[in-house]
Amino acid sequence: MRCATVTAMAFDDIEPLTVPTPALLFDLDGTLVDSVYQHVIAWQEALFEVGIPLSVWRIHRRIGMSGGLFLQALQRETGIALDADALRQLTTLHAEAYLRRASSVVALPGARELVAHLSERGVPFAIATSGARRTAASALDMLGVPEDVPVITRDLVERAKPDPHLFLAAARQLDVPPQQCFVVGDSVWDLLAAQRAGSLGVGLLSGGYGREELQAAGAYRVYNDPADLLAHLEEVGVRPAL
Amino acid sequence: MRCATVTAMAFDDIEPLTVPTPALLFDLDGTLVDSVYQHVIAWQEALFEVGIPLSVWRIHRRIGMSGGLFLQALQRETGIALDADALRQLTTLHAEAYLRRASSVVALPGARELVAHLSERGVPFAIATSGARRTAASALDMLGVPEDVPVITRDLVERAKPDPHLFLAAARQLDVPPQQCFVVGDSVWDLLAAQRAGSLGVGLLSGGYGREELQAAGAYRVYNDPADLLAHLEEVGVRPAL
Repeated sequence: MRCATVTAMAFDDIEPLTVPTPALLFDLDGTLVDSVYQHVIAWQEALFEVGIPLSVWRIHRRIGMSGGLFLQALQRETGIALDADALRQLTTLHAEAYLRRASSVVALPGARELVAHLSERGVPFAIATSGARRTAASALDMLGVPEDVPVITRDLVERAKPDPHLFLAAARQLDVPPQQCFVVGDSVWDLLAAQRAGSLGVGLLSGGYGREELQAAGAYRVYNDPADLLAHLEEVGVRPAL
Repeated sequence: MRCATVTAMAFDDIEPLTVPTPALLFDLDGTLVDSVYQHVIAWQEALFEVGIPLSVWRIHRRIGMSGGLFLQALQRETGIALDADALRQLTTLHAEAYLRRASSVVALPGARELVAHLSERGVPFAIATSGARRTAASALDMLGVPEDVPVITRDLVERAKPDPHLFLAAARQLDVPPQQCFVVGDSVWDLLAAQRAGSLGVGLLSGGYGREELQAAGAYRVYNDPADLLAHLEEVGVRPAL
């Protein structure tokens, strides 16, 4: 056994250990804005228009993953084959049905305060959403997200959640390694994508998933909503201001 | 130790063991009809009208418990005191908002077939719902529930779920001991009430709760929806027809 060098090493020989302050990568729908149920109803309406009645809970469980993957899962579960035209039509119908309801969407408790707090403190953060720029724009306004915060939408990357592309692109935009980021999301797909990206995941209950599901998908911590996360920011490495 | 009588007892001395075929006690919203999201949105609208904005997920997690308990939990969580008048107003506003949406409510997959199958086979079953008779009536029509099936609504008992009164009253109407009943519901409140009643609980995912939550609330089995339960009826003691 050659352990002499180890035992002989004094602590003051070791370079001081530094752990950088983490950056935060946020999902949008269900995480910062209370829009999941509007998306669910919009998908149900779109599917009904093309003759596919689907139970609401099955749609809810798919919200937050990419529209493409959602439709693929749908084909598998219903046995209905959708061609490229039908897929395009469904995506358009969903966006239209959502925009008709967008005026009833509000910020989740604490979301505006969290955005303001991180901005003031200079904590790097970004938004990474499976939604399209078109449906995300009004939510970003409502939250007061500053102009210089990176916003990665579905149209900017090759694959959406649970693939890690959205979060990897957001981390790159911040110029922070993904391993140094916390991903904050409300759905199982966010947390699975976080693991793929090499980040720790923080789950919020505000999208309607249960605590146990988020934990089973690998959440490092679970909070109720943005207000609850803001009250516990030190648990994700954001120290209180001195 | 006096165990001689036990060891001496031969098997043919014992009276033949009979386990009676169970009866089924069904919740309605989210269990047989796809109406949970309409109830959620109706509560959000009613609360907004009296100046209480509440995140949708918090409402969803309370659906299926009695309206009274829901409002009590709400007072605790928001710190807003509601007097008896405000409570009555909220209940009325919710019922009106729900009825405006009732036309979009459909039966869950397999629900009509399950009702028809149990009726044909002569398996005793009843409906026990936290809802009022007024909001439940159209759902019962839609499902083709025969006239002689007992329907216990909120207005017929002193306390709603998670108190056991609704299920105990339903079992009494069927003249079957509650210990011989399976309670079938989609929410944590159904399963807690089932335990209080001394019945085994069967959870369905069709109300939007996750499998893990239903298991944690004591579900004996969990199925996707009524169609999935119908396909596995032998697991709750209803043998295939010979």
